[in-house]
Amino acid sequence: MVQAPAPTAQKGSLTADELQKMNAYWRAANYLSVGQIYLLDNPLLKEPLKLEHIKPRLLGHWGTTPGLNFIYVHLNRVIKKYDLSTIYIAGPGHGGPGLVANTYLEGTYSEYYPNVSQDTEGMKQLFKQFSFPYGIPSHVAPETPGSIHEGGELGYAVSHAYGAAFDNPDLIVACVVGDGEAETGALATSWHSNKFLNPVRDGAVLPILHLNGYKIANPTVLARMSHQELESLFVGYGYKPYFVEGDDPATMHQLMAATMDRVVEDIKAIQHEARTKGFTDRPQYPMIILRSPKGWTGPKEVDGKKTENSWRSHQVPFSEMSSKPEHVQLLEQWMKSYKPEELFDAEGRLFPELAALAPTGQQRMGDNPHANGGILLRDLKMPDFRHYAVEVKNPGTTTSEATRVLGKFLADILRFNEKSQNFRIFGPDETASNRLGEVFKTTDRTWTADILPEDEQLSPDGRVMEILSEHTCQGWLEGYLLTGRHGIFSCYEAFIHIIDSMFNQHAKWLKTTRHITWRRPVASLNYLLTSHVWRQDHNGFSHQDPGFIDHVMNKKAEVIRVYLPPDANTLLSVGDHCLRSRHYVNVIVAGKQPALQYLDMDAAVKHCTKGVGIWEWASNDKDSEPDVVMACAGDIPTLETLAAVDMMRLHFPDLKVRVVNVVDLMTMQPNTEHPHGLTDKDFDSIFTTDKPIIFAFHGYPWLIHRLTYRRTNHRNLHVRGYKEEGTTTTPFDMVVLNDLDRFHLVMDAIDRVPKLGSKAAYVKQMLKDKLIEHRHYVSTYGEDMAEIRQWVWQYYSGSPAEKGAIDTQQDNASSTPSLEGEEGAARK
Amino acid sequence: MVQAPAPTAQKGSLTADELQKMNAYWRAANYLSVGQIYLLDNPLLKEPLKLEHIKPRLLGHWGTTPGLNFIYVHLNRVIKKYDLSTIYIAGPGHGGPGLVANTYLEGTYSEYYPNVSQDTEGMKQLFKQFSFPYGIPSHVAPETPGSIHEGGELGYAVSHAYGAAFDNPDLIVACVVGDGEAETGALATSWHSNKFLNPVRDGAVLPILHLNGYKIANPTVLARMSHQELESLFVGYGYKPYFVEGDDPATMHQLMAATMDRVVEDIKAIQHEARTKGFTDRPQYPMIILRSPKGWTGPKEVDGKKTENSWRSHQVPFSEMSSKPEHVQLLEQWMKSYKPEELFDAEGRLFPELAALAPTGQQRMGDNPHANGGILLRDLKMPDFRHYAVEVKNPGTTTSEATRVLGKFLADILRFNEKSQNFRIFGPDETASNRLGEVFKTTDRTWTADILPEDEQLSPDGRVMEILSEHTCQGWLEGYLLTGRHGIFSCYEAFIHIIDSMFNQHAKWLKTTRHITWRRPVASLNYLLTSHVWRQDHNGFSHQDPGFIDHVMNKKAEVIRVYLPPDANTLLSVGDHCLRSRHYVNVIVAGKQPALQYLDMDAAVKHCTKGVGIWEWASNDKDSEPDVVMACAGDIPTLETLAAVDMMRLHFPDLKVRVVNVVDLMTMQPNTEHPHGLTDKDFDSIFTTDKPIIFAFHGYPWLIHRLTYRRTNHRNLHVRGYKEEGTTTTPFDMVVLNDLDRFHLVMDAIDRVPKLGSKAAYVKQMLKDKLIEHRHYVSTYGEDMAEIRQWVWQYYSGSPAEKGAIDTQQDNASSTPSLEGEEGAARK
Repeated sequence: MVQAPAPTAQKGSLTADELQKMNAYWRAANYLSVGQIYLLDNPLLKEPLKLEHIKPRLLGHWGTTPGLNFIYVHLNRVIKKYDLSTIYIAGPGHGGPGLVANTYLEGTYSEYYPNVSQDTEGMKQLFKQFSFPYGIPSHVAPETPGSIHEGGELGYAVSHAYGAAFDNPDLIVACVVGDGEAETGALATSWHSNKFLNPVRDGAVLPILHLNGYKIANPTVLARMSHQELESLFVGYGYKPYFVEGDDPATMHQLMAATMDRVVEDIKAIQHEARTKGFTDRPQYPMIILRSPKGWTGPKEVDGKKTENSWRSHQVPFSEMSSKPEHVQLLEQWMKSYKPEELFDAEGRLFPELAALAPTGQQRMGDNPHANGGILLRDLKMPDFRHYAVEVKNPGTTTSEATRVLGKFLADILRFNEKSQNFRIFGPDETASNRLGEVFKTTDRTWTADILPEDEQLSPDGRVMEILSEHTCQGWLEGYLLTGRHGIFSCYEAFIHIIDSMFNQHAKWLKTTRHITWRRPVASLNYLLTSHVWRQDHNGFSHQDPGFIDHVMNKKAEVIRVYLPPDANTLLSVGDHCLRSRHYVNVIVAGKQPALQYLDMDAAVKHCTKGVGIWEWASNDKDSEPDVVMACAGDIPTLETLAAVDMMRLHFPDLKVRVVNVVDLMTMQPNTEHPHGLTDKDFDSIFTTDKPIIFAFHGYPWLIHRLTYRRTNHRNLHVRGYKEEGTTTTPFDMVVLNDLDRFHLVMDAIDRVPKLGSKAAYVKQMLKDKLIEHRHYVSTYGEDMAEIRQWVWQYYSGSPAEKGAIDTQQDNASSTPSLEGEEGAARK
Repeated sequence: MVQAPAPTAQKGSLTADELQKMNAYWRAANYLSVGQIYLLDNPLLKEPLKLEHIKPRLLGHWGTTPGLNFIYVHLNRVIKKYDLSTIYIAGPGHGGPGLVANTYLEGTYSEYYPNVSQDTEGMKQLFKQFSFPYGIPSHVAPETPGSIHEGGELGYAVSHAYGAAFDNPDLIVACVVGDGEAETGALATSWHSNKFLNPVRDGAVLPILHLNGYKIANPTVLARMSHQELESLFVGYGYKPYFVEGDDPATMHQLMAATMDRVVEDIKAIQHEARTKGFTDRPQYPMIILRSPKGWTGPKEVDGKKTENSWRSHQVPFSEMSSKPEHVQLLEQWMKSYKPEELFDAEGRLFPELAALAPTGQQRMGDNPHANGGILLRDLKMPDFRHYAVEVKNPGTTTSEATRVLGKFLADILRFNEKSQNFRIFGPDETASNRLGEVFKTTDRTWTADILPEDEQLSPDGRVMEILSEHTCQGWLEGYLLTGRHGIFSCYEAFIHIIDSMFNQHAKWLKTTRHITWRRPVASLNYLLTSHVWRQDHNGFSHQDPGFIDHVMNKKAEVIRVYLPPDANTLLSVGDHCLRSRHYVNVIVAGKQPALQYLDMDAAVKHCTKGVGIWEWASNDKDSEPDVVMACAGDIPTLETLAAVDMMRLHFPDLKVRVVNVVDLMTMQPNTEHPHGLTDKDFDSIFTTDKPIIFAFHGYPWLIHRLTYRRTNHRNLHVRGYKEEGTTTTPFDMVVLNDLDRFHLVMDAIDRVPKLGSKAAYVKQMLKDKLIEHRHYVSTYGEDMAEIRQWVWQYYSGSPAEKGAIDTQQDNASSTPSLEGEEGAARK
């Protein structure tokens, strides 16, 4: 049955003394918030307020702030009363002044920033620094103690909160959601995170939907639905909503206190039940719907226009201080309405009986270690990745599915860290499709919604988090990492763009926190992008987009890493490295399809450690200068390059070919731009200073140009990559459509190497004939020609095996599996 | 009150004959769907099925398809019964075979693709082409008649549906939402679109939530909630849900028919009420929740494992045809279970009594002109943009807010097209903040949720669509454009990344449809990105990201345009051009803050038409070769470049400086890459072949390198742009932090021009002192130095006005407004 509306909490939870003190504490927080927005000086208003005390540029958001302060003071109370460990996620992150004010009042702020001391001088500094050059941002930013969530871009509060709560059984994550933010897509689906929270092993999220009614210039959707619809919506989402609505502070304090007691007791009861009797059914967790006026306690009217409880309170409720002297008065009046003299002593210190309301030590929400997860971070216990190596006796002759191999490694990482419960895998329903299915021998998919008898690998204890929302996966993982744990996100390459903007914000967070002394590094955010562009032949054009790498490269080099391992052993090596790294975003692009293997484990480790290298076994220029450099990055480009080199060596035995493979894309940049970048000298020695380079690249070709345009030999660099030509076709034909195939690569080389003589024209004509033949074949039979499908590398130990001309079928490659039944699940 | 559960429709709506025929029609659609997935030949199974009749690669998605077919046949019935105009949006776009089958059965398909005729040969072609090289994609793709929605990337079905329904009062958009898709963020919030639909002037959306229970390898969240929660959720979203649940075809047909009758009647009643009595309250629109087995009517078991009603039906339910001969038999059995001989005559034609079930002409959903919106598209009636010009007597001396000026133009476009109702403005609550507020003199914000007496500019008749969900804005606009109307999306630059992936899909749609002969061009999707990176000084780092341009540039040149108008008149000219254009994505980046104006309207039109040009009035190289080219793109870079040139001309009067401004970014590319690209000859004549170029760019600097690396003078190109250095600071300091400021630009030029002599060292030292002085000033006063804030261009008519050294304050620039109170609303 749909739950009946939760009873509204009783009034009268607070004694008169408690009520008076809590209201005073709230006034103090509001006073400090207004001060931050407006004042440069005269922090305690000991002298009459003058224009010169006011900042020349008035910035910040008042509207949401008093509500955030109200919640903070009430959370403080229950933290003390129930001995809780709680962090505060402020979805309306623009309400920075409120969170700064509260961490200042509780003492954390001055501990982290001693210059902002708890006295008049410190308060002046507190006010001045806010949204001021070389001061602090106006949001709940990385600089704000207690924050794991900026809220500059809206939508991720709830998914961050759940990410923090997973595997933290003693933590309650209070998560304030603004009614503006609640309109975003990411937020709207993240309410369903409750179907993935296990009360036995996870902490709790306490969502507080803060309806203050207005966005910048509009009412909000949720504030303009009927009470009944609103309640029905959240019951439908699986919550038990408690309403706290009104504007009279005294009444609201009583209501909020009673409700807070009730929801904490609900949470404790749910946890107690599940932890003593085991998980049975998904519980209906409580949530609070707080409806309070926007800009509560601010000026009712400014210049005759309604301001409190209106969108006009969204930002700075009034400005024009120099042109309207009455505004200076209004500000003084407003600030004095909080009666600072009752709150702070002559030295600007909060009166002790008020200060005593805050929790102490790490129970202060500003000082909760979960909000500075690096403090709690422990290394993963890692099996030796070499153990999972596939055997590669001769390069390019046997096949394997790279991600399937990685899956075994991940399965053991899960197993090794079973006790510490600090590693999870995230993805939008693609773990199996991406062939990481081996992990299900160790764990299940997390699921606390209904489970049917025929379900497999679903359990409330699972450690694989799958929901068909990239936003939610990303938000969960961010929350999980920022509170000191480890994880990996596997996703279809094309659809990772769905979280482009979330990646942006996380990369900015990492960049900023690297330079905040009290913040400790967290584990890296690892993306495994598989089901990539070159094997979306069957899904077609909509599933083809390798541009996430380009997007990532725009962010600060100090936090960005991109890897393109060409086979299973290199993927293992890269995977191991990424999972051990800290405070980066690692992007790994790797195929899931059966593909040729090139390097044994020793070679793989050396290759990955260098990041780029000449593949001697594929090259024949050792004793001389190369005539051409055939470079590649990515699994399919590597295959096509080797197949091209095969043809080149067959038809032009005198041609000196150097094969270069790039695993770590960052090596391409100058070392002055990225710590992994090759020096010009090293780059020149690999790519030569004057020989043609044919570069087969996984992504859009210009990315390689962008990375290398300053290199000596850039003028000779010719890049083939994806160019938005795709459709439903066969795997090799997909490559042909983009001119990245072996035939085009050979023709590219022929066009650029001068010394090939007249034979070149004959070979080129044969290659063109091949392409026509290919097209006819695939459009007739719907699969690639056997000679393409079954091609293997034959130049073992550097000397060409005896082989026929390229138009002879190679029937010896029986180890190459047919693709039938191997397409795997196309997404969704 | 929460609505009581909608009554389940009565059985018995269909006569026995109707039931039998509808079921037969459904069987025909299912038969054709299976055939597309599996068969190369033997379409009517007239001979025993053999391996050679089966495709070598089996692709496509069966799971969702029978449900999509079921809905199609029931929609056909009500279209005929109630004389409806309906289009079908298939959220589970992977169910391509179903929509192709149905448009084939109704005849549309063969009209659009005559080779796929309604006979045996055509059916064979229909089967073979599906997901086959040079055939058609496996999705409901642009190639599918009747589609405006691909569904390759999930999440946008409902927003597309509402976009199509706006201003189409006679249209019912049937919108099938898969329960996988329903987990995405974009979809989860788009249900709230009903608060923006006006039953008087808009059509209706009929959402059909299709619960088939499973994603690729997981159950779905919505299928594993209780019935009550599910119902409560959708009542909370504002709908009246009707459940159709079961698996027995006969029962389900009756239920569905009765429910379809009921929902159409509900919609008609709502519309009649509103259209006769006027809009009063937001109505509770009906929706259908269809719960049917995944892979319905497919094999119950394959190899002993449950297949129907399981995730194993998601894609191809079984393959391995060559290794397991019994699978060939199973397929034959399965296909014959639909009794093709009762459906198609010996020539492969659907029996006439079944064909008669489909609507005819444009009532066929495959042929509804709304799904090929270019057919219905009419030009906007456009006022002359020159009329809105700001006066510019002397370049760079007076200020204006570019977007505010554009707002007047947009207001009149709204007014001019009031009758045709084919233009809307979309944005996440930022129309006013982005200073387009003038439009509210013509129209209101669309709002059909509760309206309070104090609300302003809210109305069910408004034409400005604001919801704090970029996804919903984008989806609405796409749906609106694809059905033949016009629009513009204004957004904060940083947050447009939220829809990166939606842009990808739309650009792919445009690219593909350009080459489909029966598709007509639609109006361009216009982005106005304002509140851009350089004026997020107050909002800080989280609001700073100019990377959308980079993202856009990865897509096909034929559908992409990027404009960076430096001032109001150029913005008007560009805006006019974009709104008249067809089948592009136009990205316009323009500031909203008071800024210097450079070009009068005549000059602006010439400049924008060329896209790039030398600004003669700012250059002094007319009679000689330049010593340096100072190039710029974007409003802030243009300002800084001119201020730099001012200093350069003051300190080095003999230096020949050429100023180049770029409006159309595509001109930078070679003309072989983009139709707007300059020829090398033209590029060389503007940028020289050997002189240093200092390029101040709005975005990330490497984009300019990427566009120009093939140009003759690329080696001398030095680009300054955004490099992820930002915080809350002052406007000019924001520029300094990224080295894009006038001082750095001058130093860059000094470093690269050899002939400046020893004076260069002195000037450089002075500039460094200036930077130190600047930093001290802003960190003390919180605003920029007056000489920066008030700088204006003084070289009227090409000859320098008399002026002091650069360290003298310019007090004559009183027309430059103070920034106080001008910050505008920071987002959210």
